[in-house]
Amino acid sequence: MVETDAECCQIISEDVKDAIILEGSPELGLIGNILGWLLVEELNMKQIGFVDSKDFPPLAVLFNGVTLHPFRIYSADNIVLFLSDFIIPPKVTYDMANGIVSWAEKNNAKEIITFNSVVVRKKTGQIAGAANTEEALKDMSDLGIPIMPFGNIGGLSGTLMTRSKIKGIPASCLFAEVLNQYPDPRAAAAMVDTLNRKLGTKINPEPLLKEAEEIEARLKELANTVQDGQESPAYI
Amino acid sequence: MVETDAECCQIISEDVKDAIILEGSPELGLIGNILGWLLVEELNMKQIGFVDSKDFPPLAVLFNGVTLHPFRIYSADNIVLFLSDFIIPPKVTYDMANGIVSWAEKNNAKEIITFNSVVVRKKTGQIAGAANTEEALKDMSDLGIPIMPFGNIGGLSGTLMTRSKIKGIPASCLFAEVLNQYPDPRAAAAMVDTLNRKLGTKINPEPLLKEAEEIEARLKELANTVQDGQESPAYI
Amino acid sequence: MVETDAECCQIISEDVKDAIILEGSPELGLIGNILGWLLVEELNMKQIGFVDSKDFPPLAVLFNGVTLHPFRIYSADNIVLFLSDFIIPPKVTYDMANGIVSWAEKNNAKEIITFNSVVVRKKTGQIAGAANTEEALKDMSDLGIPIMPFGNIGGLSGTLMTRSKIKGIPASCLFAEVLNQYPDPRAAAAMVDTLNRKLGTKINPEPLLKEAEEIEARLKELANTVQDGQESPAYI
Amino acid sequence: MVETDAECCQIISEDVKDAIILEGSPELGLIGNILGWLLVEELNMKQIGFVDSKDFPPLAVLFNGVTLHPFRIYSADNIVLFLSDFIIPPKVTYDMANGIVSWAEKNNAKEIITFNSVVVRKKTGQIAGAANTEEALKDMSDLGIPIMPFGNIGGLSGTLMTRSKIKGIPASCLFAEVLNQYPDPRAAAAMVDTLNRKLGTKINPEPLLKEAEEIEARLKELANTVQDGQESPAYI
Amino acid sequence: MVETDAECCQIISEDVKDAIILEGSPELGLIGNILGWLLVEELNMKQIGFVDSKDFPPLAVLFNGVTLHPFRIYSADNIVLFLSDFIIPPKVTYDMANGIVSWAEKNNAKEIITFNSVVVRKKTGQIAGAANTEEALKDMSDLGIPIMPFGNIGGLSGTLMTRSKIKGIPASCLFAEVLNQYPDPRAAAAMVDTLNRKLGTKINPEPLLKEAEEIEARLKELANTVQDGQESPAYI
Repeated sequence: MVETDAECCQIISEDVKDAIILEGSPELGLIGNILGWLLVEELNMKQIGFVDSKDFPPLAVLFNGVTLHPFRIYSADNIVLFLSDFIIPPKVTYDMANGIVSWAEKNNAKEIITFNSVVVRKKTGQIAGAANTEEALKDMSDLGIPIMPFGNIGGLSGTLMTRSKIKGIPASCLFAEVLNQYPDPRAAAAMVDTLNRKLGTKINPEPLLKEAEEIEARLKELANTVQDGQESPAYI
Repeated sequence: MVETDAECCQIISEDVKDAIILEGSPELGLIGNILGWLLVEELNMKQIGFVDSKDFPPLAVLFNGVTLHPFRIYSADNIVLFLSDFIIPPKVTYDMANGIVSWAEKNNAKEIITFNSVVVRKKTGQIAGAANTEEALKDMSDLGIPIMPFGNIGGLSGTLMTRSKIKGIPASCLFAEVLNQYPDPRAAAAMVDTLNRKLGTKINPEPLLKEAEEIEARLKELANTVQDGQESPAYI
Repeated sequence: MVETDAECCQIISEDVKDAIILEGSPELGLIGNILGWLLVEELNMKQIGFVDSKDFPPLAVLFNGVTLHPFRIYSADNIVLFLSDFIIPPKVTYDMANGIVSWAEKNNAKEIITFNSVVVRKKTGQIAGAANTEEALKDMSDLGIPIMPFGNIGGLSGTLMTRSKIKGIPASCLFAEVLNQYPDPRAAAAMVDTLNRKLGTKINPEPLLKEAEEIEARLKELANTVQDGQESPAYI
Repeated sequence: MVETDAECCQIISEDVKDAIILEGSPELGLIGNILGWLLVEELNMKQIGFVDSKDFPPLAVLFNGVTLHPFRIYSADNIVLFLSDFIIPPKVTYDMANGIVSWAEKNNAKEIITFNSVVVRKKTGQIAGAANTEEALKDMSDLGIPIMPFGNIGGLSGTLMTRSKIKGIPASCLFAEVLNQYPDPRAAAAMVDTLNRKLGTKINPEPLLKEAEEIEARLKELANTVQDGQESPAYI
Repeated sequence: MVETDAECCQIISEDVKDAIILEGSPELGLIGNILGWLLVEELNMKQIGFVDSKDFPPLAVLFNGVTLHPFRIYSADNIVLFLSDFIIPPKVTYDMANGIVSWAEKNNAKEIITFNSVVVRKKTGQIAGAANTEEALKDMSDLGIPIMPFGNIGGLSGTLMTRSKIKGIPASCLFAEVLNQYPDPRAAAAMVDTLNRKLGTKINPEPLLKEAEEIEARLKELANTVQDGQESPAYI
């Protein structure tokens, strides 16, 4: 059991050594969050901890009638997933990124993979990647993943890429195409094949596509909630 | 007499051991607050303390011409009620939830029950429930209370569900149906039957229904006040 | 000479033992402030100190060409008046109420009287009262003052009622009827008779009624100033 | 060389004993700032220091192509001038006033003179004055300066009047008539005669009137800049 | 290797002695940022460090698919470049300017050159300069650079000019003409000739002009991002 303190954030979690760390926080299109929920189901991940901060919005998430902590840590085999159900407030992003990188260091993590999105006028179905070192970028090219040459990576994804680089931990970011800010489970499903190549897993995107409409409804609400400045959410 | 400090909040209260804790803060529809005032009357609860914070809005509440502290703690038999007359400011929610859970721990509380609401297009009269553990959820099912499978719980309710889970205290949340954000005593009255089953009490919703219009008027003002960003309230 | 520190506020004042404390800060209608200026004149009160805080708006008040501190403390016989010429910023209200109550405790004050207002559609000329204990309320009834049964008291008035109750100091609040937020010297004049009964004084409301238009003009500007978020005031 | 610390402000300056202190910060009409630039030129004042704070807006002022510190201290004979080229942010006003008063105390300053303005519908060309003691007010009357009986003094002027009164340093404020918030060099020029009487100087307002249009253009931009909430300024 | 701490900012960098320091942060027209990227390419500058702060916006910048730190320090020969890809938040400007000046002092820097812009109605193609001392201004005149006589310098440029003056380090600012706030690579290209004279370099503006449209597209997005209050950026 490890407790990591990065000023305003605290990671309370079991140790998992030599793992690949996935970060699934809901940026534009909520790609990371949607993928995260799929991975928990498909890889039978078990919750090993949570991230805590008094600066998080007041929020409990229901799953089959039972409340979940809004920022959970899951594990299966050599994969660890940091999964939050709310957009990380900018003022805690820096400390949270440092907290995750610090956890990764202590547990000798192999690499960090984050998920983000590109707003496009028309979807091509392409997934592109970027990395925080030339080597990590080459690994991606070797897997046939197209490279995102220029642009900016915002939110926890971006800060995590920068903080892990400083500590010498390889990190990469996968970008799905989205048309706007709303939850896009189909864009997340399009990322599964690339992720399978990266992780050597056999995750099935079918349930995601089937559940697309159901998930779409739930996450639309989440997005509305978080956009309203963390005000009292609407319920199903 | 116990004084509990959770950074920005302080609970000053008598001890009540092995109690069931009810939390009645005014979320959407002010359900918890309306139910709280009914319980004080119906169960002859006596005030045993109050919650204090310099971050509360400047506010005194009048009852028959005498000022009440805006966040009071009541007790009767084995029931303890935390009753606030203002929406808890988000910045103190985390500390306040920790304070209440800490009080519950020290007093060996049996469980925590919070009240919230679901915005619906058309009311069916149903009350649904959620819990912070599988066991607490089963207790609810056993009482014939329908389960709210998915969604988010915001405000003090949500944070309280999460913080109590971490400390191993069972907690459940009851959801009334409301059409909008305004005070809804009829929705609160609809919750009385479910609450009687939960608590083994015989609370009579009649006075609530009778007083509905009277209460409606008073709380409409409270809601207006709190929505205006804690500005100078209007008086009756 | 006493210096009282309540975090962000400091009371620098002579001691006056066993006094009745009046609080005159400008809530809706500026009733307390208007009454305060009248009392200083009518009772020949002398300034015995001031309240200081770096969170006050930058402001000096002119009286016959000489600057006054914006929050002054006056005394005459057994009456002490806390008189501010600006609306107390919400962030200092809690500390200031504690500071005044602490001063009252040290000086063994008999009671605290605050002034507030009720927005009505049509004036009846009635003054109503509320108190922080049953005894203080009975004293008011005995003087024939009608009771304000329900409602909320905001601002420094409200917090002062709550904080003094905790320390066991009786406090009451008198409510004048106002039509809107603007300075209303006539509403303040209507309160003089009730205040005379409370204090056993013979304050004459005539000068207030005569000066009504003159005061109206000066305070209208003050209200405009303070409402603009403490921006640069306009001058006469 | 003296360094004065008043929490968020630091005064770094040579000592000048027994001086009259003028404060020229740009309130409505920028009167103090315009007069200050004239005094520096007319009295051949030399810079003896500056006021520093991390809460000042990021700003350097150009004079003949060379950057000036945005808040400078000048001296000539027995006159010391505090001249800022930006509106003092409200959150530093209290500390800065205390810093200046503290500097005045250490240097045994004779008196403080501040400049402000009155918004009028129609100009009469009158300059009025107010003071922080009866004696200082009498000195003004003796010079034939009309008294401003009632009103409020905002900004650094107002706080300076109050803080210096507490420390027993006489201070007075001169008010020019302005029609609106924009820079008004003509209103500043109208104040020169009164200031000459006060200081015993022979400052010539002619250059000010001649340069009026030129200065008007430069300061209009400054006013625009500062009003925009200290955002990136426009350049000439 | 030096670590410089200026409260909220930290400079982690190799030492370069006796260098000329260029500061390229994106003020109006993003002139400094555009010039900075050109200099890195044209002068084959290598990254020697970065500036870090928890108050920076969450952001990683992609260059050929690899993430760059958003505020980097480069060096070539005796030139050191501080290059940020985001507008410096006002609240860190003071500390960052002090940090850079402190780095300059420790490394015995010869001078500091900053880049800024003037909003004009019609471009004349002129580059003007200002300096923080008469000597630095003369050096500029001797190179035939026209002087910007009056005006204000905002942002990191302005604070850097003031802070370096206090520490006795000569600094100058070059102003390009821009029509509005949007990225203007052509205005940056117009500055290359003046910069070559200042530095004795032979930087070729051709690539900048060629790449103008390409860069224009990328930076337009950056500007949009930063203007939106550091919200989630859009991607190419």
